Amino acid sequence: MARWRPGARERLVLAAVDLFAEQGYDTTTVAQIAERAGVTKSTFFRYFSDKREILCAGQQALSQLLTEGIAEAPENATPLEAVAAGLERAASAMGPMNRELAPRLKAAIDANTELQERDALKRVGLAAAMTEALRARGVPDAPALLASELGVLAFKQGYAQWLQAQPDTLLAPYTLAALEDLRATGRSLA
Amino acid sequence: MARWRPGARERLVLAAVDLFAEQGYDTTTVAQIAERAGVTKSTFFRYFSDKREILCAGQQALSQLLTEGIAEAPENATPLEAVAAGLERAASAMGPMNRELAPRLKAAIDANTELQERDALKRVGLAAAMTEALRARGVPDAPALLASELGVLAFKQGYAQWLQAQPDTLLAPYTLAALEDLRATGRSLA
Repeated sequence: MARWRPGARERLVLAAVDLFAEQGYDTTTVAQIAERAGVTKSTFFRYFSDKREILCAGQQALSQLLTEGIAEAPENATPLEAVAAGLERAASAMGPMNRELAPRLKAAIDANTELQERDALKRVGLAAAMTEALRARGVPDAPALLASELGVLAFKQGYAQWLQAQPDTLLAPYTLAALEDLRATGRSLA
Repeated sequence: MARWRPGARERLVLAAVDLFAEQGYDTTTVAQIAERAGVTKSTFFRYFSDKREILCAGQQALSQLLTEGIAEAPENATPLEAVAAGLERAASAMGPMNRELAPRLKAAIDANTELQERDALKRVGLAAAMTEALRARGVPDAPALLASELGVLAFKQGYAQWLQAQPDTLLAPYTLAALEDLRATGRSLA
């Protein structure tokens, strides 16, 4: 299998995250990110309006995939089956760029309280988007909220396991297995 | 019942949160907080090392109460019963100051992305502390993690309902009812 090669957009994201890890988010400038990525500042601005957007872009895409998957699940799907459909849709968009990015992003987040706070808010945002998508299917508030929380936990746990697996492995089986584990754990707790 | 009257520490917290809501967290200074609270700057520094600590102090106290309650639950308590013990312990420390503070804190958080991010991280921190306390009781990782997430959700939901209730109402019944609802919802989802 040919080695994955990042385009300009991917190089900008990787360069930004590395710089955030090395010197902090606040002190990193757009000029530094562009230089590290080997592109001009105007190329940066073709892809992103500012450095903050680099962190938000991935979340928006993920949020959209999760909610689309939930919306398009079969009409008779249970709330957790709809969440599983969202996880599958999201997983289908994750590939070598995510594998490349994940450990660097983790390093940047571990090193920086501000990024930890953003990452935590991202999780809240994903859960809220999934809750909304479940409500739109007619799921009542309480199960919509809990199923979304389980979905976010499953995504997080499955993603972490996937990163440890062989490079050619698909993400979906990991997130779906994590959701099934959470369901079983929930049953034993209840 | 006599009206609750805040001491210097409480006045500083209320003044700080009001100023964060009015003009943002970043632009608020310790001098402004002290002035609004009607105390000197040196009084401020008797209670807090900086303005950030005003936001952290409540979380540390809450985290400690939750974990103490979990640690001291009866040996044969299930994970969710231990979490309920943590919620009861935490609720016992919540009184008129929290009722006074809560709507103002909500206004400050709603108005400020940075405070939203901190609030989200606070929730992650509470869940992590509860997970640790459950592990220390010998609860395996998966149920410890899920029971903690349910505990944090129950605290959040119960707290919001308590704020809507009559002033003399106790918090504990609300958080415990919310945990019981989540348990029942979890069972129906599974």
